[in-house]
Amino acid sequence: MSVPARAPRFGDVEDAAGRISGVAVQTPLLESPQLNERVGGRLFVKAECLQRTGSFKFRGAYNRISRLTEAQRRRGVVAFSSGNHAQGVAAAAALLGVPATIVMPSDAPAVKITSTRALGARTVLYDRRNESREEIADDLAAKQGATLVPPFDDPVIVAGQGTCGLEIFKQAQAVGVHLDAVLVPTSGGGLASGIALALEQCSPETKVITVEPVGLDDFARSLRAGRRTHNRGALSPFCDALAVATPGRIPFAILHRRRAAGVTVTDSDAAAAMVTAFAQFRIVTEPSGAVALAAALHGRVRIAGKCVAVVCSGGNVDPGTFSHALGGRACAVDSAPQW
Amino acid sequence: MSVPARAPRFGDVEDAAGRISGVAVQTPLLESPQLNERVGGRLFVKAECLQRTGSFKFRGAYNRISRLTEAQRRRGVVAFSSGNHAQGVAAAAALLGVPATIVMPSDAPAVKITSTRALGARTVLYDRRNESREEIADDLAAKQGATLVPPFDDPVIVAGQGTCGLEIFKQAQAVGVHLDAVLVPTSGGGLASGIALALEQCSPETKVITVEPVGLDDFARSLRAGRRTHNRGALSPFCDALAVATPGRIPFAILHRRRAAGVTVTDSDAAAAMVTAFAQFRIVTEPSGAVALAAALHGRVRIAGKCVAVVCSGGNVDPGTFSHALGGRACAVDSAPQW
Repeated sequence: MSVPARAPRFGDVEDAAGRISGVAVQTPLLESPQLNERVGGRLFVKAECLQRTGSFKFRGAYNRISRLTEAQRRRGVVAFSSGNHAQGVAAAAALLGVPATIVMPSDAPAVKITSTRALGARTVLYDRRNESREEIADDLAAKQGATLVPPFDDPVIVAGQGTCGLEIFKQAQAVGVHLDAVLVPTSGGGLASGIALALEQCSPETKVITVEPVGLDDFARSLRAGRRTHNRGALSPFCDALAVATPGRIPFAILHRRRAAGVTVTDSDAAAAMVTAFAQFRIVTEPSGAVALAAALHGRVRIAGKCVAVVCSGGNVDPGTFSHALGGRACAVDSAPQW
Repeated sequence: MSVPARAPRFGDVEDAAGRISGVAVQTPLLESPQLNERVGGRLFVKAECLQRTGSFKFRGAYNRISRLTEAQRRRGVVAFSSGNHAQGVAAAAALLGVPATIVMPSDAPAVKITSTRALGARTVLYDRRNESREEIADDLAAKQGATLVPPFDDPVIVAGQGTCGLEIFKQAQAVGVHLDAVLVPTSGGGLASGIALALEQCSPETKVITVEPVGLDDFARSLRAGRRTHNRGALSPFCDALAVATPGRIPFAILHRRRAAGVTVTDSDAAAAMVTAFAQFRIVTEPSGAVALAAALHGRVRIAGKCVAVVCSGGNVDPGTFSHALGGRACAVDSAPQW
């Protein structure tokens, strides 16, 4: 298996960019003059909800599966996921002709389970409260001889997600902008650390900031403490894609080295950011995918006088949830910066 | 005024592409494997709803205003528009430091009027049923010595919209695809004819197809008749951006020369296409912006075995209208091809 047994490097991100080129969407970096005026700075949105399968997860999954040997491809892949990684793995596997089995929580949004099946993957549902998805997936992998595609704690996955950071840098450069910070919705840390890895080489002064729901701030606390700490049980059914309780080892090592900071937002902040993304950028974001935009708009990070990019990391949301959010209010910019 | 007093040519589209580069968004050409499976072909969505101001109109407006002399810029610009051209002109004028006055129907979606004002333009509202927007705009232009920026019947506007066609061609080429057809939401015909002009040079075999709401099919009937014909009074409050009753002279001449065809869709087709755009592409489309996707999904154009691009031309829609559409059903693919 041509997977480096070492921490990922910038060259791995460049390699991944070559592999996904022409397969993944080069998602646009959007800007709204009206919103810029409100925040008093330049706010860019990296619209990863427009990525193939509706989230950034396709980048890492394709990078990982494209490196399997022929024998490994025949035995297939297994993954566990609350939904977006599931779809990313299913789509990448289908494109590469690899059978995929996905272990998903039974309470994941219907749209994510349906889409995973529609992409040709076999799904195995489990009870998020009483069963261990890791054990189920390991068991399946052992029985089939299949390869487990981990959601974030893997050098090749991290390098794949890093292609998003490479694009952000190049797109900002193309409009003559140097970014002060990039805000990233964060669960296990694959996307945030991949982006940090890309920026370490391209734009080392750009600060990477993880954004988590209040009560699920394992990354924010871990970065402050200098070691990995855990969440105790809290779930955010609204931000269902950000439910991981502990930072990944590889992601944490990178983000700690890069002196990343972490901030938090409430569910109602996230809902208001979904409305702003709808009205100002005409993109569909899921609650988890909108938390970085929420952090910028609700003043968790000071934007005034700065150039900041936020990643809208996913757009897989049930119509009912989306309509309900649209019935609420758009963000009012407030000012209680955590960073 | 450096505006060619002649029919626009391919070189004018290339020139416009240079002018808008780095100012306009290069909107992505999206694809959904699931949807491709449903239609039995390859269906690409050009997401112009992600364009600056939420519609393609910015392209033509910026191209036009950027060509004004210093003296003309000081006297400002005037435009009439049901909303999207208004915002395109307002944003382009603001970027170029030119004062703008926009004549808008009083029953335009609130979001369009509010956004036009937020972009710094002065708005003058009129009654769509009893007043002539052309007369009001001409009068304002005469009083102020301002330049009228027409919505579609202008060689520089057409060339500007043509940059969308140039991008579609290049983006399809980048993934090794030759397009059989491009479907375009059509009112006055600026976008469809601009795209036809670009493709005439790049990909002359690609068919351009105009899409209009049932009852507002002046372009479809004109193309069949070989001369410009008019709609008689019918309005589609749902597809508010497609209310022009007569094809523009310049757009019609180009589309007639290129042997374009025209098809129609119902309001409920358009609403269903909005749901599909939400679920499959995570983009926000307004009803008018979704009619080309609706034509593809409802079998107005045969997609099976073909490669077809549809333009989602705008995404300026009130949250209530969008939520209401989401409450309905996504498209079921049917088969009554008109082309």
